[in-house]
Amino acid sequence: MSTAEDTLGEDVPWGEVTPEAARKLLVAAVEAFAERGYHATTTRDIAGRAGMSPAALYIHYKTKEELLHRISRIGHDKALEVLSAAAERPGTSGERLAEAVSSFVRWHAGKHDTARVVQYELDALSAEHRTEIVELRRQSDAVVREILREGVEAGEFDVPDVPGTTLAVLSLCIDVARWFNVHGHRTPEEVGALYADLVLRMVSARK
Amino acid sequence: MSTAEDTLGEDVPWGEVTPEAARKLLVAAVEAFAERGYHATTTRDIAGRAGMSPAALYIHYKTKEELLHRISRIGHDKALEVLSAAAERPGTSGERLAEAVSSFVRWHAGKHDTARVVQYELDALSAEHRTEIVELRRQSDAVVREILREGVEAGEFDVPDVPGTTLAVLSLCIDVARWFNVHGHRTPEEVGALYADLVLRMVSARK
Repeated sequence: MSTAEDTLGEDVPWGEVTPEAARKLLVAAVEAFAERGYHATTTRDIAGRAGMSPAALYIHYKTKEELLHRISRIGHDKALEVLSAAAERPGTSGERLAEAVSSFVRWHAGKHDTARVVQYELDALSAEHRTEIVELRRQSDAVVREILREGVEAGEFDVPDVPGTTLAVLSLCIDVARWFNVHGHRTPEEVGALYADLVLRMVSARK
Repeated sequence: MSTAEDTLGEDVPWGEVTPEAARKLLVAAVEAFAERGYHATTTRDIAGRAGMSPAALYIHYKTKEELLHRISRIGHDKALEVLSAAAERPGTSGERLAEAVSSFVRWHAGKHDTARVVQYELDALSAEHRTEIVELRRQSDAVVREILREGVEAGEFDVPDVPGTTLAVLSLCIDVARWFNVHGHRTPEEVGALYADLVLRMVSARK
């Protein structure tokens, strides 16, 4: 359905999922999983939310786990893309770390329902899918660790424990999905800027 | 059952819950909620895990929500107690902040199942219970904010955004419950020490 995609542009949630019925079902699954949890959601619930019959769902997804895997895969690909884009920018290590943190935070705040499903339902994936997703997480981790390592090497950062600090930086960004409230008084951009500053302080970045 | 409590001491999980049948049910509920989520768990599941009948459960808890509220209340009381104890210690603001962070982290790492239920299932509480718990969270937040405010006032910390930094500090500690793995290579004490150092850097504490 490339015509629909071209017309609707990037603003359509999950625009990469086609055809339209498969996309609608995936949007419904994200909502249901975020609201009630994976285990409390049935494929019947998801079909109902999307205004379809359970039989229509099975045309696109054989199991509930297939839906979760699709969501998790796209979400983790996106997270890795966001971090890699920041890491590959020109600039100092501090500038690249600030961009990685602020864009990762904006993603977790802006897409908090998706992020909660992606971050909290890993245990519900099949063993095979879990291995695939854990590898993507390892890659995201490596992108941030490499920015820290380069900053230390350049004398720009002071980080005694690079793997531990990497874990803390990613954890801080991920938890935004838990507490971020669209009705709160901070925008995703404001949280991103605050967190970029706090993380630069964590690594004792030279100003 | 004070005899059992006295004999078993503080190491009995949820030792404050009596009688023993009520304690066992609560332990089973924490396990089930952490594993499958609140909405996917039935009172029958909980009774079964505790080796009791659903009728035996109803003697102690009228509803599943009553169990969640009890868990959430005790968990939030404990979190507030941990933070308050650190805040009331003698010492510099930096020492008190380091103690607040390391003890809060140790609690979230050591009791990660409880912490996940306490932190992720707030939306499942009744409106009345939610109001009560939100007030406890507001108090925990105020304890940390006050340490930061005092540190700034004493010229010990440099914190441009005290409420935002308070939020980030608590969020960093809370997310330990998500990623902490008892089979991982860091102990709760090691994570606590690392995070205390990172948070002192966040507030630019004078060494």
